Amino acid sequence: MSVRTPDPEPEPEDDGLGAFRDANPSAPGSNPGWLSDIELEEARRHLPMLYVEAIPVRTDGSGQVTEIGILLRSTPMGEMTRTIVSGRVRFGETIRDALFRHVENDLGPMAFPLLPPQPLPFTVAEYFPIPGVSAYHDDRQHAVSLAFVVPVTGTCEPRQDALEVTWFPPEAAASDAVAAEMEGGRGTLIRLALANLGLLR
Amino acid sequence: MSVRTPDPEPEPEDDGLGAFRDANPSAPGSNPGWLSDIELEEARRHLPMLYVEAIPVRTDGSGQVTEIGILLRSTPMGEMTRTIVSGRVRFGETIRDALFRHVENDLGPMAFPLLPPQPLPFTVAEYFPIPGVSAYHDDRQHAVSLAFVVPVTGTCEPRQDALEVTWFPPEAAASDAVAAEMEGGRGTLIRLALANLGLLR
Amino acid sequence: MSVRTPDPEPEPEDDGLGAFRDANPSAPGSNPGWLSDIELEEARRHLPMLYVEAIPVRTDGSGQVTEIGILLRSTPMGEMTRTIVSGRVRFGETIRDALFRHVENDLGPMAFPLLPPQPLPFTVAEYFPIPGVSAYHDDRQHAVSLAFVVPVTGTCEPRQDALEVTWFPPEAAASDAVAAEMEGGRGTLIRLALANLGLLR
Amino acid sequence: MSVRTPDPEPEPEDDGLGAFRDANPSAPGSNPGWLSDIELEEARRHLPMLYVEAIPVRTDGSGQVTEIGILLRSTPMGEMTRTIVSGRVRFGETIRDALFRHVENDLGPMAFPLLPPQPLPFTVAEYFPIPGVSAYHDDRQHAVSLAFVVPVTGTCEPRQDALEVTWFPPEAAASDAVAAEMEGGRGTLIRLALANLGLLR
Repeated sequence: MSVRTPDPEPEPEDDGLGAFRDANPSAPGSNPGWLSDIELEEARRHLPMLYVEAIPVRTDGSGQVTEIGILLRSTPMGEMTRTIVSGRVRFGETIRDALFRHVENDLGPMAFPLLPPQPLPFTVAEYFPIPGVSAYHDDRQHAVSLAFVVPVTGTCEPRQDALEVTWFPPEAAASDAVAAEMEGGRGTLIRLALANLGLLR
Repeated sequence: MSVRTPDPEPEPEDDGLGAFRDANPSAPGSNPGWLSDIELEEARRHLPMLYVEAIPVRTDGSGQVTEIGILLRSTPMGEMTRTIVSGRVRFGETIRDALFRHVENDLGPMAFPLLPPQPLPFTVAEYFPIPGVSAYHDDRQHAVSLAFVVPVTGTCEPRQDALEVTWFPPEAAASDAVAAEMEGGRGTLIRLALANLGLLR
Repeated sequence: MSVRTPDPEPEPEDDGLGAFRDANPSAPGSNPGWLSDIELEEARRHLPMLYVEAIPVRTDGSGQVTEIGILLRSTPMGEMTRTIVSGRVRFGETIRDALFRHVENDLGPMAFPLLPPQPLPFTVAEYFPIPGVSAYHDDRQHAVSLAFVVPVTGTCEPRQDALEVTWFPPEAAASDAVAAEMEGGRGTLIRLALANLGLLR
Repeated sequence: MSVRTPDPEPEPEDDGLGAFRDANPSAPGSNPGWLSDIELEEARRHLPMLYVEAIPVRTDGSGQVTEIGILLRSTPMGEMTRTIVSGRVRFGETIRDALFRHVENDLGPMAFPLLPPQPLPFTVAEYFPIPGVSAYHDDRQHAVSLAFVVPVTGTCEPRQDALEVTWFPPEAAASDAVAAEMEGGRGTLIRLALANLGLLR
């Protein structure tokens, strides 16, 4: 499928998925340390951008993952694609804070995520503008993403209308059918997460 | 300090800490696949025993660990020592089930532990009967322990009277004073856990 | 395919694959701490056995894995199956020493393996005698295996005639065809190793 | 001790430690995708910079780490400080390539490093311009560093005169004395590496 970026266009919140839905030109509370839209666009062509990504999961009483959450959204071209929680780390922001912010932004305030106590991601995904350099691809930038599995205990209500969370059992999440619908090669990211969870066969 | 074993004496429940407190000779519901006390004692002299261990932690709303739980108990000789959740994996039992069983057994039914979704321990601790082979030591057996960090969200009420849980901030848990009171070299285990949590300085 | 065990029969060397090829009843230099064949057979029915497993790999100059080594052997029934380096941890033996011993035993003295500096396995594989409890299965025992990726820089000359090492590129090693020929569900182990190496798509 | 940055000043090679020693204003073969010195300086004030860091180690025949390599250098102010291999990831460059480039640049062409087959760092170090946000500190930028342990098998000949590699046994490398001499809080990084190697007590 066609490739979409995690954070493809200049936008005030620096949020990956928000880019397609949020056109307001200035963010309230924006920090003078942050870049303007034009500066950010420029930086994307010259520096690797740092991202965090999160795969929401549901667990049973013994901590075993039972379901994998995948976000469904509509692109500006009206195409439906699947992705995961994704967004940029801001200047001065810790990775944990960025992860919390993007999980809340994409899954809503009632998701009640349990961020992992360990700071280490399960993988580091390298998105390149030229396909084939790695498993991951992003037309508009070189992004390096620290990817985490995040159990959620509440109700996911994606803040933007175009977005919903679909819950898949592990085998379905690892399927070629789901992988074919994932943006930018993130089907591989789902499989690496399942491997890390001991759920890949 | 003197060295104590995670599971030092034959006992029906096969539980590490229970050994000092539980003298009943036969367990109700014991499985015919399990060894008798004498057979288990014999096996300990000839085979490495498989254990799980858990370090209980408390976390804040962003998943960051704020406190480390360490168990205090009295040995049969009346000595006070510190340890962590520890116990043997039974024949036919999964590691996750063994971990859940020992956490519940040592912390009580109201601890509400959040077992990690990942099956990989943060370290594999090798306890040898001869000191100095590794950082860990157990007079009575060669035990190999898969060690996990387990956030708890409820109230820890150790089931046996002799036991209580003391909560330490990360720096205190890493101190030489605490390490000196830990059984069998488990001060090192606490430090490796803190390193894994990004909390060791 | 039919299921084979990593260490299925009592044998003096305690080596997984040797069981099928080595019928000598007593090992020179055996340690009094070790069990006799009959005692070991008995223990297998009552205790989880601790194993190490190794997936040999070849790397390029930048450390990237280019090939996965899989062992081919013939069972006593004349059936050809695929497996990896596998063997039991002896009483008193460190995991690193057990890993080194089994790698040398299965790949020969000229393999020149580079054992990983980190002691943590990439996965802990749980083999149960009843299929379906986990991804791994072993008719004759409950075995818990610490699995490692081990780059080899020399020539693999399996010591026993029935054994050879076949080198697969990562995609082929992850294929269903290879998985179907692997003993005891070890196709899953290969895939988890590839995921850990960032080579699973 | 005073804090030094891994990549503190604009310099054509984008190399952390080179900054203090290399004053040539333009790099031959520089890529049009890369930033000029002034642009890079500007970006450092607005975006987290992506780094790789490497701790060189020597291992024995069984893969066990025996020595930790720490770089000694003189700052422009004539102060001696200790650090590790460190440098920026360029636009379009893979993490593995950046790691290889900086290891070769800092340790020389005869170090013969064995880059790890796994792409996951042992920790992600977050350097902030304001001290106290994390264990790591960098006056001039917000840098996020993927840190690796890299065994070297040859001879380290740091390319710049001011630099030499000192080899410490694990206990010495973990000492407060060494930590006090390390730049930007990297004593913690050394300890986390030792913990990951199972060598921290």
